[in-house]
Amino acid sequence: MLMTNGSLPRANATPSDSRTLAAAFERVRADSERICAPLEIEDYGIQTMADVSPPKWHLAHTSWFFETFLLKPYLGGYREFHPLYAHLFNSYYETAGTYHPRPERGLLARPTVEQVYAYRAHIDEHMLRLLTQSEAGDAQAVAYRATLGMHHEQQHQELLLTDIKHIFAYNPLRPAYMPEALPVSVDASDPPLHFIGVEGGVKQIGSEGAGFAYDNETPCHRVYVDDFRLGSRLITNGEYRAFIEDGGYSQPQWWLSDAWKTVQVQQWQAPLYWEPRDGEWWQMTLRGMSRVDDDAPVCHVSYYEADAFARWAGKRLPTEAEWEIVAAQLPVTGNLRERGALAPQRAQNEQRWQQIYGDVWEWTQSPYAAYPGYRPLEGTLGEYNGKFMSSQMVLRGGSCVTPPDHIRATYRNFFYPGDRWQFSGIRLAEDGL
Amino acid sequence: MLMTNGSLPRANATPSDSRTLAAAFERVRADSERICAPLEIEDYGIQTMADVSPPKWHLAHTSWFFETFLLKPYLGGYREFHPLYAHLFNSYYETAGTYHPRPERGLLARPTVEQVYAYRAHIDEHMLRLLTQSEAGDAQAVAYRATLGMHHEQQHQELLLTDIKHIFAYNPLRPAYMPEALPVSVDASDPPLHFIGVEGGVKQIGSEGAGFAYDNETPCHRVYVDDFRLGSRLITNGEYRAFIEDGGYSQPQWWLSDAWKTVQVQQWQAPLYWEPRDGEWWQMTLRGMSRVDDDAPVCHVSYYEADAFARWAGKRLPTEAEWEIVAAQLPVTGNLRERGALAPQRAQNEQRWQQIYGDVWEWTQSPYAAYPGYRPLEGTLGEYNGKFMSSQMVLRGGSCVTPPDHIRATYRNFFYPGDRWQFSGIRLAEDGL
Amino acid sequence: MLMTNGSLPRANATPSDSRTLAAAFERVRADSERICAPLEIEDYGIQTMADVSPPKWHLAHTSWFFETFLLKPYLGGYREFHPLYAHLFNSYYETAGTYHPRPERGLLARPTVEQVYAYRAHIDEHMLRLLTQSEAGDAQAVAYRATLGMHHEQQHQELLLTDIKHIFAYNPLRPAYMPEALPVSVDASDPPLHFIGVEGGVKQIGSEGAGFAYDNETPCHRVYVDDFRLGSRLITNGEYRAFIEDGGYSQPQWWLSDAWKTVQVQQWQAPLYWEPRDGEWWQMTLRGMSRVDDDAPVCHVSYYEADAFARWAGKRLPTEAEWEIVAAQLPVTGNLRERGALAPQRAQNEQRWQQIYGDVWEWTQSPYAAYPGYRPLEGTLGEYNGKFMSSQMVLRGGSCVTPPDHIRATYRNFFYPGDRWQFSGIRLAEDGL
Amino acid sequence: MLMTNGSLPRANATPSDSRTLAAAFERVRADSERICAPLEIEDYGIQTMADVSPPKWHLAHTSWFFETFLLKPYLGGYREFHPLYAHLFNSYYETAGTYHPRPERGLLARPTVEQVYAYRAHIDEHMLRLLTQSEAGDAQAVAYRATLGMHHEQQHQELLLTDIKHIFAYNPLRPAYMPEALPVSVDASDPPLHFIGVEGGVKQIGSEGAGFAYDNETPCHRVYVDDFRLGSRLITNGEYRAFIEDGGYSQPQWWLSDAWKTVQVQQWQAPLYWEPRDGEWWQMTLRGMSRVDDDAPVCHVSYYEADAFARWAGKRLPTEAEWEIVAAQLPVTGNLRERGALAPQRAQNEQRWQQIYGDVWEWTQSPYAAYPGYRPLEGTLGEYNGKFMSSQMVLRGGSCVTPPDHIRATYRNFFYPGDRWQFSGIRLAEDGL
Repeated sequence: MLMTNGSLPRANATPSDSRTLAAAFERVRADSERICAPLEIEDYGIQTMADVSPPKWHLAHTSWFFETFLLKPYLGGYREFHPLYAHLFNSYYETAGTYHPRPERGLLARPTVEQVYAYRAHIDEHMLRLLTQSEAGDAQAVAYRATLGMHHEQQHQELLLTDIKHIFAYNPLRPAYMPEALPVSVDASDPPLHFIGVEGGVKQIGSEGAGFAYDNETPCHRVYVDDFRLGSRLITNGEYRAFIEDGGYSQPQWWLSDAWKTVQVQQWQAPLYWEPRDGEWWQMTLRGMSRVDDDAPVCHVSYYEADAFARWAGKRLPTEAEWEIVAAQLPVTGNLRERGALAPQRAQNEQRWQQIYGDVWEWTQSPYAAYPGYRPLEGTLGEYNGKFMSSQMVLRGGSCVTPPDHIRATYRNFFYPGDRWQFSGIRLAEDGL
Repeated sequence: MLMTNGSLPRANATPSDSRTLAAAFERVRADSERICAPLEIEDYGIQTMADVSPPKWHLAHTSWFFETFLLKPYLGGYREFHPLYAHLFNSYYETAGTYHPRPERGLLARPTVEQVYAYRAHIDEHMLRLLTQSEAGDAQAVAYRATLGMHHEQQHQELLLTDIKHIFAYNPLRPAYMPEALPVSVDASDPPLHFIGVEGGVKQIGSEGAGFAYDNETPCHRVYVDDFRLGSRLITNGEYRAFIEDGGYSQPQWWLSDAWKTVQVQQWQAPLYWEPRDGEWWQMTLRGMSRVDDDAPVCHVSYYEADAFARWAGKRLPTEAEWEIVAAQLPVTGNLRERGALAPQRAQNEQRWQQIYGDVWEWTQSPYAAYPGYRPLEGTLGEYNGKFMSSQMVLRGGSCVTPPDHIRATYRNFFYPGDRWQFSGIRLAEDGL
Repeated sequence: MLMTNGSLPRANATPSDSRTLAAAFERVRADSERICAPLEIEDYGIQTMADVSPPKWHLAHTSWFFETFLLKPYLGGYREFHPLYAHLFNSYYETAGTYHPRPERGLLARPTVEQVYAYRAHIDEHMLRLLTQSEAGDAQAVAYRATLGMHHEQQHQELLLTDIKHIFAYNPLRPAYMPEALPVSVDASDPPLHFIGVEGGVKQIGSEGAGFAYDNETPCHRVYVDDFRLGSRLITNGEYRAFIEDGGYSQPQWWLSDAWKTVQVQQWQAPLYWEPRDGEWWQMTLRGMSRVDDDAPVCHVSYYEADAFARWAGKRLPTEAEWEIVAAQLPVTGNLRERGALAPQRAQNEQRWQQIYGDVWEWTQSPYAAYPGYRPLEGTLGEYNGKFMSSQMVLRGGSCVTPPDHIRATYRNFFYPGDRWQFSGIRLAEDGL
Repeated sequence: MLMTNGSLPRANATPSDSRTLAAAFERVRADSERICAPLEIEDYGIQTMADVSPPKWHLAHTSWFFETFLLKPYLGGYREFHPLYAHLFNSYYETAGTYHPRPERGLLARPTVEQVYAYRAHIDEHMLRLLTQSEAGDAQAVAYRATLGMHHEQQHQELLLTDIKHIFAYNPLRPAYMPEALPVSVDASDPPLHFIGVEGGVKQIGSEGAGFAYDNETPCHRVYVDDFRLGSRLITNGEYRAFIEDGGYSQPQWWLSDAWKTVQVQQWQAPLYWEPRDGEWWQMTLRGMSRVDDDAPVCHVSYYEADAFARWAGKRLPTEAEWEIVAAQLPVTGNLRERGALAPQRAQNEQRWQQIYGDVWEWTQSPYAAYPGYRPLEGTLGEYNGKFMSSQMVLRGGSCVTPPDHIRATYRNFFYPGDRWQFSGIRLAEDGL
């Protein structure tokens, strides 16, 4: 089994039990290393594009996060592991000091993988000390930041898997991260897509503060939503292939202006990782190359493609409010990371919405913006989410590489509309009841 | 007097009088040429950056619009003026055929200015024939498209002035478009900025269809808005200078992530067109170089700068809904183009909101997106607005170079968050009542 | 008649007659303006690539040369025409002050064409005063620099024609600089190419100082040359077409490494200005589009193409020493500018070398480097030639747009190996006798 | 001891003894691996700029060379190690098939270092079989190509060391390749630089074919050379520092035009690897950071810098003919790789020329071009040297990382004039006797 199965305690600002927190910390930290276990040392240092970070960088950066925001301010007498690591492993916190240029993370031969693991061990040891003996006055802040750090590390666990996929897909040898092929369910065909109506009105979205949430999910606030109908399942490879075969990638009328430029400059002809072989579409997966399964959800499409597909299909993408209104009614289960598939899987034959959680992140038509009354965290941690609120789009629901205790109805992921290397896909919506 | 003073008839889809339409057409067309009257032939062909178009291109493109969407489909027996002009003067309508690359519009020595004016005369002559004799069945479509074409030309009139300003500001000789200096009002100081509260709730925004509106202003729809307070006037140069002098351009904490990259790459230190001279700030205007007037509204700032300024000031930018709720209550008057200032001017000492219309376009915090239920126009004209709905921000209210019959409360302008060459400025807002 | 026919007095450092010098000056200056006579004002400001300068810039820059190197230092009481023109019209003389960025010469709306002609008139008036009344002590320096300035202006006359061709060829309307078609000689076929042997040994090349020469042609010096055979005439379009049709542009074995990269990145398939139309090759000329004449010399090929063609043909390009040894024996006549063809023309049926002067500049295999003992001119004028001695190749013999009193056996022209917009072509050579 | 000390048998096209050849092969192959011995696995995959190749790529590419040019054509029944390695490890041989893009060599996680060593072992085993049992008819070709392959691998050994230096210097941790500091000789001061005259005339340069030589060293041919004087030793850091301190990097008059652009764009202020620390210059070396030794030869300067320095010093760089005429008289000894310094060292107090071989490659003023009568090797191997004969400059004499049996008086190295990452330095010359 690739990843641990236990769930992350819904840690929040008032942890009743520091041992629970410490146990969760150890589990999350171990998960990152388990994800890297199949890698060769050579795989750890590669950066195949500016958006990708080398696996060893993820491992070190998540440790730097704990060192910077917990150990230095809260663990008395703590001395940093290495004076230059703050520069090397700060990602983008401008107010925390200088940082190594992002597109050049793959040029760092050193520290070695062994040294990075030693850094992790050093951080783990001190974090456990801090979590179990933090002083009364700091306990709440430490618990909150530790929880934030664990969620942060879980985000990087997802990035580890998306980046490893990119690194392996780039390589002409097409190495497999997992050797075993994915068992395909025997169900002959995909359940028909239908649209389920939801009555509009003034609704409430955003986090109410019961469990952990990022600042960008707050405050819980009212929105006015018209009646809408949300697709019962994700769009499949087969449905998307019809768009391709209808000439979708060569007809400007389906595409936003920026999208059409991207299609032409990048010469897109299909989702990322698809390759034609002998008249059939194949795709790179974490298990190596495999034939595209028409009944599985389409994945690795950009917002531009999701939006163009929706227009071609005579539908539209949902807003994030519409999505959340539906998702809030549904249990957080699905093809998430702990299932071990690490690839989106076919829908079941059900009456209600499915695949809401897991499988693929669902592009919404909502630009990533501040909720009314939004306040970022204080200080440097305020750079975590708030400063990205321009030119990106919101995605919802998690994917097949998202830890199950990391996702929730209010969770807002965001990427640029041309990004495709995430496990991102399409759910359609339409107006009316 | 630079521009005609008459107002554009609120032409809509059912023109009772074709002569009114023809008169409006002639006036709008004449305005474009009046704007260009002070230019030398050499000024007509320059493109100082990809966003700028040479004046002669604007003159020809607006003519192509009428030729393509009215004369060819509706004027029987019409023959195009030149077989290559469609390629040269199509701006971005992918479904209307090929077009000359946008960044290379300034490389076209020919057609000459004289030939472009001949093209305009040819279009005018045939348009007047069409407007006064269009067949019964087409009358409504012709009236609608002619009105759209006039609004389109008015948009380009504004662009003509912003682009001429850029062309002249680039030139080390700093030529003046208008020779006379702008009279500065004698009022010693600027009225204090205060914030006026508006009660929230379910509100209605968007065009109800009474007068002309672009497709992107429709449909009229409900939104939920919290209580808010909107600034009584625009932010002044003096207020913005305090941000500069406080180190605003060198402190990352005020800036969005994309913004901070832009500040560094473009080496921004002040609004566009500001230059330090002997310890004072000067700026390029359409009347040549002049000292920055601390009491006039700040202009030529990007969304990034507006947003950073708001954060530094402890406020925020308004949403487009908030702005429209206020603007809908106010008359459409202000320092618009017909006043002839062609530069933003000082606020008056008033109790209510002022400078809502005119002076500078006001950046809102709203990304440019489709209204719920939005439907673009049919066919190629659907490319007019809809395909730009990604990565841009909404601006509201018109500027000192906007024709007064071109602006309205529901009008949505949009530019990329880093754009600065428009007459764009800042109005602040805050939460609560 | 396009250009004056008189020859430039072989002005040198000891002019016996200042009136001769003044007359030559007037003639050269008038030639530049005559070249521009067919232009529209719109044509004067265009820069279609970084290497091209707008015609009005050439007109102003050549005037700046006289102002900077003659009027300011030698004409007592001279006041510069405009304080910013030195910045605008200095080309690349680093030690003469700042200069406007080269790729942005086409962004300057002002000064207008009329102002540039006024600048020229101002310079002419003062230059004539200087030439006829320069003080005894300065006479020699003035005569030398004035002569240099005239040769400089003649170089720019050639550039004017090459740049106008580029500007017109870029334009989709393909305007003609001269309306009349070029009369094609009736001779049925091209004389056969043969190679004429020259005995090797220690030879002397470079200028002996009898007439005017640039510094880079000096000193006259000895070189050792093996026996060689030089082609009797230029390579024709028909011969070059055989290379194209043999797949030359898609076979890497003929190309230098840098050349092959250029072929792929620039997607070269034929010489510059060639276009396929209905299965035939057409080309842009100064007289508009015309069918490629198989019997005329190939033109607008880069060094990369000339070198690849030679390799494909089993020959090589000559060295500049080989070329000069032959050229020094031949009279300076040929299809030069005064003939008015402004396009390369067919060879005659002769026994000896022909087309050595005129038609096209001939690429040699010699990199542009200093002759042994070379000394650049003193001061800023030392930047004229010497600082370009890296990464460029030598061309010899002048072209159909070279003034006849501007070319000589020792003349060294130089361009980067990928440049194609000059009138440059191919003469082959081989080893042995 | 880092490298083996034995000398490479001057293998040529008629090897009397296949065992000598096999022994040389084994030694050369072992040297490459010995060079990599101090590396961590993480160091093997890094490419810090397009010119640098990852160490594992060098190891594999040199093996591919033997596989492609020897094993496949000459070893009966040989099967390639992996079907994709030809694509991955072909460097630039267009006629040998496709190849991985050069700037992306550092993005290849796989094959692993272990797999690359397995590839090497496979090649070694089969090469030894071929060398000891090649059939009579092929023996001469095999011997020649094997020798070529060994020299090829030695070139890559030098590149391994220059590239490792670049990879380590890039890293903010500044790791040392060799831990021990370089012992500095006790000699107080540097011997004075003097210039030693050589009489000119018709001379002979190029390889006469006695030992191995690359095709670009042939044919031996006559050149005419004027009297010249060649500097007795290399230019030192101290002498170069005087140029820096005199403002050399900010005064355009010393620099070629292309050079000055490079200085400004790259913001050069000193040789590559120099860093100011507390008012002193330090530099990165293969032994980590050390203070710049004023008495050691300046290193890691481009042609542009060497040429500018020479102009500033009132001298010039030698031509390659001048250099070779002197070098041919001197024994091939010096601070070469086998000495183990791996850094240039101080000159001795001698009367004659010194440091001709080793220490640093010496930039000449000669562009890299074909010798008269030059013929590249037949077939794909003709791409080895000939296709680079444009825009590069010749360097002579080898460096402190050149194997001693790899250098000779006729050896022509070549790099672009802006390249600085090689161990390249300066020797001056002047005219006269």
